[in-house]
Amino acid sequence: MQASIISIGDELLVGQVVNTNASFIANELNKIGIIVKNILAVGDNERDILNSFEKYFLENDIVLVTGGLGPTHDDITKKAVCKFFNVKLYQSSEIKERIKRILSYRNIEWNAAAEEQTFVPENCTIIPNNLGTAAGFLFERNEKYFIVMPGVPYEMQDMMINFVIPFLSSKRKGDMIVHKTLRTTGITEAALSELIGNIETLLINNNQVSSTLAFLPSPAGVNLRITAKSLKNEYAKETLNEIERKIRAKAEYYIYGIESEDLESVVGKLLIERNLKIAVAESCTGGLIADKITNISGSSKYFERGIVAYSNQSKIEILGVKEELIVKYGAVSEEVAKAMAEGIRLISKTDIGISTTGIAGPTGGSVEKPVGLVWIGYSDAGETFALKNNFGNDRLLIKIRAAQAALNLVRLKLTGKKIK
Amino acid sequence: MQASIISIGDELLVGQVVNTNASFIANELNKIGIIVKNILAVGDNERDILNSFEKYFLENDIVLVTGGLGPTHDDITKKAVCKFFNVKLYQSSEIKERIKRILSYRNIEWNAAAEEQTFVPENCTIIPNNLGTAAGFLFERNEKYFIVMPGVPYEMQDMMINFVIPFLSSKRKGDMIVHKTLRTTGITEAALSELIGNIETLLINNNQVSSTLAFLPSPAGVNLRITAKSLKNEYAKETLNEIERKIRAKAEYYIYGIESEDLESVVGKLLIERNLKIAVAESCTGGLIADKITNISGSSKYFERGIVAYSNQSKIEILGVKEELIVKYGAVSEEVAKAMAEGIRLISKTDIGISTTGIAGPTGGSVEKPVGLVWIGYSDAGETFALKNNFGNDRLLIKIRAAQAALNLVRLKLTGKKIK
Repeated sequence: MQASIISIGDELLVGQVVNTNASFIANELNKIGIIVKNILAVGDNERDILNSFEKYFLENDIVLVTGGLGPTHDDITKKAVCKFFNVKLYQSSEIKERIKRILSYRNIEWNAAAEEQTFVPENCTIIPNNLGTAAGFLFERNEKYFIVMPGVPYEMQDMMINFVIPFLSSKRKGDMIVHKTLRTTGITEAALSELIGNIETLLINNNQVSSTLAFLPSPAGVNLRITAKSLKNEYAKETLNEIERKIRAKAEYYIYGIESEDLESVVGKLLIERNLKIAVAESCTGGLIADKITNISGSSKYFERGIVAYSNQSKIEILGVKEELIVKYGAVSEEVAKAMAEGIRLISKTDIGISTTGIAGPTGGSVEKPVGLVWIGYSDAGETFALKNNFGNDRLLIKIRAAQAALNLVRLKLTGKKIK
Repeated sequence: MQASIISIGDELLVGQVVNTNASFIANELNKIGIIVKNILAVGDNERDILNSFEKYFLENDIVLVTGGLGPTHDDITKKAVCKFFNVKLYQSSEIKERIKRILSYRNIEWNAAAEEQTFVPENCTIIPNNLGTAAGFLFERNEKYFIVMPGVPYEMQDMMINFVIPFLSSKRKGDMIVHKTLRTTGITEAALSELIGNIETLLINNNQVSSTLAFLPSPAGVNLRITAKSLKNEYAKETLNEIERKIRAKAEYYIYGIESEDLESVVGKLLIERNLKIAVAESCTGGLIADKITNISGSSKYFERGIVAYSNQSKIEILGVKEELIVKYGAVSEEVAKAMAEGIRLISKTDIGISTTGIAGPTGGSVEKPVGLVWIGYSDAGETFALKNNFGNDRLLIKIRAAQAALNLVRLKLTGKKIK
């Protein structure tokens, strides 16, 4: 079964609102194996709305519409739906009772807007709105389904979970689709693609199952999304697992997590499992590593302190970096990165210390030490070392990449991986 | 002029990625008066892509396409574009040189994926990619414009700002639409709306000019976007200025900047103008204030150091907070916030010290000290004080709001405003 989503509202077309509704709906449909063919955003304009209804209901088994069901003058979806299906509105006493209850609960008097919301189209199933006044509608025509929901995200989500998904699950035929995302860092999209090799030999496509692999890059790393499709759910899941196994055989080193797991969360779990504490000394990342670590609830268990040692003086005074090192090698150097990592570990009495010192730019670079050069230091009771990196020429991206690389270095050490 | 946006990628249709690219593009087009008619998401499927190109380039003056320009097998946009315009690919030596520079800069060897990216369509203008390897393309046909950009958000945004918007601005006809955004913080949308009063008396609408005001809330504050439309540019601009004057007369206290100016950038300029230095001592914000300050290029001129004093021990050892204070009042208290702010100022020998200590949750709250309670401390040579805040119950939002409030406190002090 194939669906398309139509999101109605001028606010989407002026860029004021990001269309999170469509992603939510697509994600829910996808889970039950319904393929979303298109997502369309269209303005509060009757002709455009009717044109989109016509095109998409012709091309799809299911059309899901959100938005424009409110009581104000720019909410014209209900009228358009009536025109499209050639039906009239009638006043539903059941809905009137429900809205009365909602208003009295909120201490609001009956008003014209509420009255307007009691009128619903004939010849359709009413989808109850548990959280607001705008009802949803389901039209069944020739084994096709046209579903209309309000644009208020939590009202729509409630309708999807409690009505639309159970309904469509009972109607759906055909393939189950499942996904898994593997999150990598420390490798570019191109290098990862080369490492993994010929995609066709990795994927499994036969008369039982089909599969695909997508590369999704971001400043913090490349996500790999595996998709498998089969009539049987267990075939689809086995296929996912098999492809994951093949990818891990080649790229395990770079995979830090699955689905929406962040690196800072993975590192946090590793530290808790091993009962270790960490502290950070940041120069060019300017607090971003500490910020990421402390985004994780419960990080106070393993994060002791962070020092943003921006000035040389602070590196010397707090971290105990020897002034001679800075004079001889410069603040951005292997020696200073090591001294910072060791210094923060010693003063905080933690098991691990990490550090960054680099040139975030746009100024301050030289031929020898260009913008983007970042030394990342690591220190534990057994060893202290620093790695040289170059993270490009954009200040904010340099910070993001350096913070991610520092956290990844901790992950690699904690999981006993060789540092490349 | 009317535009439509086509976003390509299966990840959009399975709900894995929210289409923030389309909102960004729509918002930028809207600022220069280009109306967005439709936003369409379509999968990595050549026939669907070509069908959408045909329909939307027929119906619009401008089509903007993003996604599918990477070097992997599921990136098929470039091929589809060539088919659509009936042009061939050629290898651009200029792009080859650029990609070589990028790779060598990042210490990556030349590879098949890089080679692939050197091929671009004939008979179009190449849009340079300052941040990645995938070039963009601009096709001009019969005074219509077809623009193709990568889907990586920061690469696309860079192309939009530096190439596409200046280009389209030079081509557009009809009413001039101008915008101005006033950025506020420290006040809710509802309170700001009440403070500003009746919008209709604020706006100017006559036969020469029309205007609107939008409230755009975000965790860091509410932006007010004024829009004015007129055939004459000077009328539109005068209208903007007049409305801005009226808003400032009522809400000046809360306005820290205009357009895309961040609070950390405003505070940075104030510190440079006054030749002052600052240092921060963070507990619950976990490095976010230092991170924001150091996002600004040149911040090393005024930012001396930051301490993320997550453990009590670090508050005592580094900031010189007396242990008795923590025992008596607790780490989250007015007394400790003051001691942290004064401590960081004294050890760093800066003019200003700021601090945060609070309960970011989700655990650790009590009836007396609930999740969301944050004390923000301020210290300069003349005074040391702390302000109590409650920033809700979401860990990340608490961090964002507390960091913003701390920076805003510095702004208010530096501009001689009364602290409310």
